[in-house]
Amino acid sequence: MRDLTAVKDALKDHRIELPSWAFGNSGTRFKVFGQPGVPRDPFEKADDAAQVHRYTGVAPAMAVHIPWDKVAEYDALAAHAKAAGITIGAVNSNVFQDDDYMLGSVCNPDPKVRKKALAHLLDCVDIMDATGSRDLKLWFADGTNYPGQDDIAARQDRMAEALAAVYARLGPGQRMLVEYKLFEPSFYTTDIPDWGTALLHCTALGPKAQVVVDTGHHAPGVNIEFIVAMLLKAGKLGGFDFNSRFYADDDLMVGAADPFQLFRIMHEVVKAGALAPDAGVAFMLDQCHNIEPKIPAQIRSVMNVQEAVAKALLLDEDALHAAQLAGDVLASNAVLMDAYNTDVRPLLAELRQEMGLAPDPVRAYLASGYAEKIIAERVGGNAAGWGA
Amino acid sequence: MRDLTAVKDALKDHRIELPSWAFGNSGTRFKVFGQPGVPRDPFEKADDAAQVHRYTGVAPAMAVHIPWDKVAEYDALAAHAKAAGITIGAVNSNVFQDDDYMLGSVCNPDPKVRKKALAHLLDCVDIMDATGSRDLKLWFADGTNYPGQDDIAARQDRMAEALAAVYARLGPGQRMLVEYKLFEPSFYTTDIPDWGTALLHCTALGPKAQVVVDTGHHAPGVNIEFIVAMLLKAGKLGGFDFNSRFYADDDLMVGAADPFQLFRIMHEVVKAGALAPDAGVAFMLDQCHNIEPKIPAQIRSVMNVQEAVAKALLLDEDALHAAQLAGDVLASNAVLMDAYNTDVRPLLAELRQEMGLAPDPVRAYLASGYAEKIIAERVGGNAAGWGA
Amino acid sequence: MRDLTAVKDALKDHRIELPSWAFGNSGTRFKVFGQPGVPRDPFEKADDAAQVHRYTGVAPAMAVHIPWDKVAEYDALAAHAKAAGITIGAVNSNVFQDDDYMLGSVCNPDPKVRKKALAHLLDCVDIMDATGSRDLKLWFADGTNYPGQDDIAARQDRMAEALAAVYARLGPGQRMLVEYKLFEPSFYTTDIPDWGTALLHCTALGPKAQVVVDTGHHAPGVNIEFIVAMLLKAGKLGGFDFNSRFYADDDLMVGAADPFQLFRIMHEVVKAGALAPDAGVAFMLDQCHNIEPKIPAQIRSVMNVQEAVAKALLLDEDALHAAQLAGDVLASNAVLMDAYNTDVRPLLAELRQEMGLAPDPVRAYLASGYAEKIIAERVGGNAAGWGA
Amino acid sequence: MRDLTAVKDALKDHRIELPSWAFGNSGTRFKVFGQPGVPRDPFEKADDAAQVHRYTGVAPAMAVHIPWDKVAEYDALAAHAKAAGITIGAVNSNVFQDDDYMLGSVCNPDPKVRKKALAHLLDCVDIMDATGSRDLKLWFADGTNYPGQDDIAARQDRMAEALAAVYARLGPGQRMLVEYKLFEPSFYTTDIPDWGTALLHCTALGPKAQVVVDTGHHAPGVNIEFIVAMLLKAGKLGGFDFNSRFYADDDLMVGAADPFQLFRIMHEVVKAGALAPDAGVAFMLDQCHNIEPKIPAQIRSVMNVQEAVAKALLLDEDALHAAQLAGDVLASNAVLMDAYNTDVRPLLAELRQEMGLAPDPVRAYLASGYAEKIIAERVGGNAAGWGA
Repeated sequence: MRDLTAVKDALKDHRIELPSWAFGNSGTRFKVFGQPGVPRDPFEKADDAAQVHRYTGVAPAMAVHIPWDKVAEYDALAAHAKAAGITIGAVNSNVFQDDDYMLGSVCNPDPKVRKKALAHLLDCVDIMDATGSRDLKLWFADGTNYPGQDDIAARQDRMAEALAAVYARLGPGQRMLVEYKLFEPSFYTTDIPDWGTALLHCTALGPKAQVVVDTGHHAPGVNIEFIVAMLLKAGKLGGFDFNSRFYADDDLMVGAADPFQLFRIMHEVVKAGALAPDAGVAFMLDQCHNIEPKIPAQIRSVMNVQEAVAKALLLDEDALHAAQLAGDVLASNAVLMDAYNTDVRPLLAELRQEMGLAPDPVRAYLASGYAEKIIAERVGGNAAGWGA
Repeated sequence: MRDLTAVKDALKDHRIELPSWAFGNSGTRFKVFGQPGVPRDPFEKADDAAQVHRYTGVAPAMAVHIPWDKVAEYDALAAHAKAAGITIGAVNSNVFQDDDYMLGSVCNPDPKVRKKALAHLLDCVDIMDATGSRDLKLWFADGTNYPGQDDIAARQDRMAEALAAVYARLGPGQRMLVEYKLFEPSFYTTDIPDWGTALLHCTALGPKAQVVVDTGHHAPGVNIEFIVAMLLKAGKLGGFDFNSRFYADDDLMVGAADPFQLFRIMHEVVKAGALAPDAGVAFMLDQCHNIEPKIPAQIRSVMNVQEAVAKALLLDEDALHAAQLAGDVLASNAVLMDAYNTDVRPLLAELRQEMGLAPDPVRAYLASGYAEKIIAERVGGNAAGWGA
Repeated sequence: MRDLTAVKDALKDHRIELPSWAFGNSGTRFKVFGQPGVPRDPFEKADDAAQVHRYTGVAPAMAVHIPWDKVAEYDALAAHAKAAGITIGAVNSNVFQDDDYMLGSVCNPDPKVRKKALAHLLDCVDIMDATGSRDLKLWFADGTNYPGQDDIAARQDRMAEALAAVYARLGPGQRMLVEYKLFEPSFYTTDIPDWGTALLHCTALGPKAQVVVDTGHHAPGVNIEFIVAMLLKAGKLGGFDFNSRFYADDDLMVGAADPFQLFRIMHEVVKAGALAPDAGVAFMLDQCHNIEPKIPAQIRSVMNVQEAVAKALLLDEDALHAAQLAGDVLASNAVLMDAYNTDVRPLLAELRQEMGLAPDPVRAYLASGYAEKIIAERVGGNAAGWGA
Repeated sequence: MRDLTAVKDALKDHRIELPSWAFGNSGTRFKVFGQPGVPRDPFEKADDAAQVHRYTGVAPAMAVHIPWDKVAEYDALAAHAKAAGITIGAVNSNVFQDDDYMLGSVCNPDPKVRKKALAHLLDCVDIMDATGSRDLKLWFADGTNYPGQDDIAARQDRMAEALAAVYARLGPGQRMLVEYKLFEPSFYTTDIPDWGTALLHCTALGPKAQVVVDTGHHAPGVNIEFIVAMLLKAGKLGGFDFNSRFYADDDLMVGAADPFQLFRIMHEVVKAGALAPDAGVAFMLDQCHNIEPKIPAQIRSVMNVQEAVAKALLLDEDALHAAQLAGDVLASNAVLMDAYNTDVRPLLAELRQEMGLAPDPVRAYLASGYAEKIIAERVGGNAAGWGA
């Protein structure tokens, strides 16, 4: 059991980044349900993200998605965010929502399409320059649906070529985070389907290229905390896209489907000393609140991560280490479970009060009247959403 | 090895039903790619479906999806289809694309929504009366995304109530086909997630209620031909929604991902004597051609099913039975594999020529100029697609 | 939040049944590791099971496995168990460890083997008469490894015939529990692979035939609490075989891999009023402690189940119901998570002290010297294990 | 369509290596069924392997497993094999069947166990020197069953240390092949669970360390041919352990569960020019014939691989390449399927006759009387099997 003050200090320092797209409408291929009061532009998304930070105190940045968050003046967006109390975080590129990308973007067999996709990626670095963002998050929908459709190896060469061009464009203090995903929207091959492929590319590129782990992007049964431990050991874990799932890439609230898994992941992070902001691991949410209201869902998600972190920090690492070395299977498991079974909600309530916050962020948000206000005000215009 | 004439006769009698929605644009939650020449209304969809029948000779019906295929006069649609050489097949209800259905349709906690959904289902039976359709295909997106979100057992009661009301409305010669699906768009519970649940409902309802097996709707590793054998044995297999997948409900062309599985399924059908139209099993396609042209993709899919059927028909059932009873594992497997490894394409080419068709349906379609014609003609208006 | 006294009373009444085979050596196909002090006969297994009950107070029965627990006089075994403070629980048949069963037992294509297997099942009912057991637990390894190896439908007929003969032999107050399993040791078809198949057989047989849910016997992603709710609704849930897994049928300690899932299952049980012994649901463990000491692993497993039950009992069902009916996704999930996130260990420690037990059963067992005693005494003879 | 003579030449040159353990008894944790006539020592295994080569002409090597194939004089075993017409292939180490390895071998927390395991690995290289084997195949059962049981990162360090020591001991012309496996016998973490981990170790070691792909060792849905393409591209594919599965590591005959997948894998191999023996890829079988006779099962497996190779060789690579570059999804898939749908059995029968073999190897073996001979002769002694 660590010193409680140290635990609290670590929790206060911990930072969770919010995704702008979680505040817009989202859904499945079957239906995007509209919700009242959703933002109509990136400025309103920043307002909503700022609410999450206001009640949790640990979520001071919002990632943007280009072109969903395209604005004329990125400095203005950054200034607006700053006024609301937050900053602009990672820039997420999007090379999958244009008809040209039907057969892929940077891996497309058509060199014209590849060129267009690469230009977009480079534009994203321009935006990073304007917003002061550190991280370019690269997720590619590229892949194929049918055996034989394209050449697996040739597509890797095209991928490598594009990544190298982007890498060369990165400025000082900028990084690229390469994301992998088993499947969807491609249904036979995906060009970066697993951490092995992502790591090969990042290693070839250099130290500014890091792997990002989306907790919903693995095959059934894959042990995610093992991958996290491997990437941390290799110095190549750039960050997380947190969410949870029962089936595929369900994008549910992090901690909703398997809170024990989330704890085990955070245990690896804490053990490796990678929790603090200067360790270079970005803790980002990447979720779709298809049927629940967006802002309280984000607040709840931040709280779920915090609870997992708190449990991981409270774990008695000395006792664990001793039991492991002694080969005592039941005792070492018991030390881990003791930490997990602890109810850390009172500790976190106390922490929030020390930070000048309400002990229950969801309740405080619901009582604030903000939800009613945006429903009343945000009338007219197009609600933001996937693809908008 | 069966008598070749009998094999050909069985192949000529076999019927495959096409889905109207396969001819419109489709995609994933990330993007629906538009293709030139796609139909703008149900009449044009029927024209395209008729093309598939024209070149394959075994696909004389098109299922419709309501409200995607809503028209003012269903008799007119039926007449249009008839003039094009096909009929209207199953009516598919859709109670998942209206904002009211965010938390479910017939299982929604709100009785007003349940009432609305039920009214739609009953409307679909009216449409069946007008089109002369035999089958009402019921797939429900109903379910929940989060543990605790709703009461699993209470939702079953609501489901049973709605199904009973629809059942009571069925006329003579009409059936309802109840479809199950593991997940998507619901990500925690789905109200009819497996064949056990579908069968429980159909058994409670009576002989006009039958289960439909969508080959993409199972958990990884589930043995689909086993389920087919069980439902055939119970007299409860109403039909198939054919497609294929590598991961989840990928809706690829049937036979594209695992042609051996398709053969094993058809082997169970043939063995149970359920191939002929009067056996009451509907062989329907349910696919999304997200990146490939729709009409030739449907033709290819029909051919893939035919090839699996031909192999199943050619299997030496006497030799198989003898090897099975003798407990000869390798010999019984070898009999099955002999059938599967046979190249049935020459036989099917011959069959088509006997039917007055071109031996290679895809080539014949591509040479016909139809694709170029619809691209030129179908300009203006809204392309049909998921949700349209 | 329920009345705490009622919660404690429910916890005191709850009964968990232990498997005799968990006390013997076990392993994988790669290796069975021997542990010192393991029992050499069923009497010593009963002694060990009695230790688990001694420290937990809620595990007063031990299931037996025939022929692993074959003894000359079952009355003597029952008397020995009684003297040690426990009773003999379910009788588990075993028709998979004889060379005759290579191609199946009751589903074997050879009628002589089927006859032999059936005779064993009927012998098990004789043993139930002698031990006073209520439940005959039937798990069949029957299935096939290769497509074509045997006829799926014919094997179902053989299965039905054997089950009917056993059913007819059951005396008053006796039941048969039919278990399903996706795969292993059969690798293509399993004759009872899922709850749908088990339920079909049990429904055909009658009220004394019930389904048993082994938590490790499902495909990846299958929602087990949904199945539990369905079987409870149908009046057909006879019991559980508890264990946990990350991959296949790993048979780890229950609650070790996904404690949240265990809680969700117990929530369905509690909601349906099926926790109390007179509800007829048997809560059995079925685990293999391949690398950890057996007795403390069983104690820990009992505690894990108790913790899940306590959380389920503490859930505020009124608040949950209200939030569900209101369609408040986040609030209903929050009610469920509040119960799950509660640390129930202090409550259970208090409960044990009220029952005259030590608050920490594992610690009390370890301090008792029993482990050292059996290691010293159980020298010579053959250690019990899988297949012995 | 390639030149038929070139196709045949490639097929004649192709080499498939047999596993000695496939000829002994095997099974699951539930039961190892004994078969009559199985070998009682490594010499008899070599006799049986020679039979497979005798009828197929492409399987001239048998891999050994130490200590299962421990003999006093390895030169004598090599000479015996040579006299029978084959050679000794890869040496497989076994550090999982000793009680000391309960918590792992080279990753064990106890340094004494690690030392013992490493000594065994080094002994295996001594055996390679004696048998003239090129490849040391390293599969580790190492892992943990429970969260917290041991330190994931620390175990990697121990693994790396052992591998480095073995690498340093390799002589000229010797290689080590590092195998990965998702799970079993470990059920929480496995120390080398995926190709990413195996590749990290092999890259750190150097050019003599290569990855081996066992087709049964992946999570559901993982695209194996993609991994094959990646490893070939990285110059790190050392070989295959072929088998097939429907569920987990079922170890069925290769090509029995998903022959289309096997073809897709061989397509990647052929495309990369890695089929010929001098490309350095070892094509090994690794199977368990639990319920079928061993020798004909191995013959069938060799034939299944040959059929997949023949189809891959017949594929019209120019047409495929052109369709891929044109972005013609259906045409490129059709080219691949044309090759797959070809019945190559006549071609292979012709090839065998050109090689002086019977056209149907299984039939020829069954007619030879060898099976009856070994059943009659191999009486007394202990049948070889897993762990023996």
